[in-house]
Amino acid sequence: MNHWKLTLAVLLALACAGPQRAPQTLEQVLAQAQPSDWRTPDPQQTLYLDVNGGRVVLELAPAFAPQHVAAIRALAQRHFYDSQHVVRVQENYVVQWGGGELQVPALPDEYTRTSDGLAFAPLADGDVYAPEVGFVDGMPTARDPARHSAWLAHCWSMVGVGRDMPPDNGNGAELYVVSGHAPRHLDRNLAVVGRVLSGMPLLTALPRGTEAMGFYAADVAKPAMRVQLAADVPPGERVPLEVLRTDTATWQAYVAARRSRREPFFVVPTDRVELCNTLPPVRTPPPNPR
Amino acid sequence: MNHWKLTLAVLLALACAGPQRAPQTLEQVLAQAQPSDWRTPDPQQTLYLDVNGGRVVLELAPAFAPQHVAAIRALAQRHFYDSQHVVRVQENYVVQWGGGELQVPALPDEYTRTSDGLAFAPLADGDVYAPEVGFVDGMPTARDPARHSAWLAHCWSMVGVGRDMPPDNGNGAELYVVSGHAPRHLDRNLAVVGRVLSGMPLLTALPRGTEAMGFYAADVAKPAMRVQLAADVPPGERVPLEVLRTDTATWQAYVAARRSRREPFFVVPTDRVELCNTLPPVRTPPPNPR
Repeated sequence: MNHWKLTLAVLLALACAGPQRAPQTLEQVLAQAQPSDWRTPDPQQTLYLDVNGGRVVLELAPAFAPQHVAAIRALAQRHFYDSQHVVRVQENYVVQWGGGELQVPALPDEYTRTSDGLAFAPLADGDVYAPEVGFVDGMPTARDPARHSAWLAHCWSMVGVGRDMPPDNGNGAELYVVSGHAPRHLDRNLAVVGRVLSGMPLLTALPRGTEAMGFYAADVAKPAMRVQLAADVPPGERVPLEVLRTDTATWQAYVAARRSRREPFFVVPTDRVELCNTLPPVRTPPPNPR
Repeated sequence: MNHWKLTLAVLLALACAGPQRAPQTLEQVLAQAQPSDWRTPDPQQTLYLDVNGGRVVLELAPAFAPQHVAAIRALAQRHFYDSQHVVRVQENYVVQWGGGELQVPALPDEYTRTSDGLAFAPLADGDVYAPEVGFVDGMPTARDPARHSAWLAHCWSMVGVGRDMPPDNGNGAELYVVSGHAPRHLDRNLAVVGRVLSGMPLLTALPRGTEAMGFYAADVAKPAMRVQLAADVPPGERVPLEVLRTDTATWQAYVAARRSRREPFFVVPTDRVELCNTLPPVRTPPPNPR
């Protein structure tokens, strides 16, 4: 086949591939996203953590750890966390807070759940740790088809429940957020309850703890917390945030744009994308009412 | 086959597998490591970066980017970086320094190299981004057997050379370190020149920049740098550090212990390990001369 015949064949193949968008950059995908491509997190499932002079917004994931999430919401509503502090800041691992005495029984194991009934948007690129990965309602999720099980992945910004040694499963009084490279070996070993949508640097730029595992020394002034359920804040005072939906064609275009970067900076597109490098974008919605 | 026959078969299989250590924890592997399992980085290929009140130790990787490494060593020896500052701190991405005017030509592309001649210790667990991954002299490395090419992976703590748009390849005046989840889409797009062995929090806990891409605003006081080649510091004043070798049976035991965590905290061993979650340990050598 000579060069021109080859070119013709390629053009025909492209034409016959059906309606496809041209390769786009991340910026282009987001610029073309419609209002319906974004969702507003439920204020009943959103926490505000005031710490270190600013506000961290945490979206809970009741579909994965319903009893832990219910316990955390209840603790927030009775202001338990307001007497708590950041107690641990370990480089490239976790920032942890809370843990004060709490006379309630530990909760059941919610490390995994059935994959049945989950609207799972798979990522085609594979994963080192799990048979399948993808997103459920914007949360990075792993799935094992053989066991019909699913669990949230320990990506940067994901929040889990601290616990003691097994069989303790934690009670929600102590929480941690992943602050560095995804420690995926924690998957299925702890209850993961949500994702920080904004304010990560308020936690990750804190001074590192100098004790074992990054705990703060006894004589260090620990950052104080104040935690509220967003629904308990007047609507006009809530943090306006939207998260890109993961069940849309726009999401697929976003993943494709991350998989093969088209920005002029890139010489070689990787043509692969990894779960924890593809967390859904979060934005402050545009000011004009739609 | 009944249960007892199966058990016997398993026992025979284990007995016939030859000498194998019992499963160990990370702590056990490191406690049993011999002095010869550790290596001392070459002071000719080690930089000290004094910043933010402390010292960052950076081991260079001349096998991967020889011309960039040579340029960086020369810049350090003529005190170029001592007039430079940290200019960018972007959450979960990179911390970047330097970039002052430098009237030298850009260097050639050293984004990948031939895999020939590299002592590559493969990791058996696979990778999302590359056909093969493993370690070369302690540096996390990706390899493409089909193209006989190899490159350093953008893991947390790996250092690369900032550059402008292609075809610029950078000249070493501006460097960055990966501060969060591994941005592996940068692999093969930039020259990676080494790994920070200690002092990461001096860079990663800095206040985040508020401009686009985490650059510091013009009116912000930027942290000053002082950079020396370790070989230019009197031996008695050098930072004593050792890195676990990656070409030993102890290294294989260490990887196995990370792959399947045996510590009592873990309920489910993941039985997988990922490149950037397996960086070689660094220690201050024991005080007693051996």
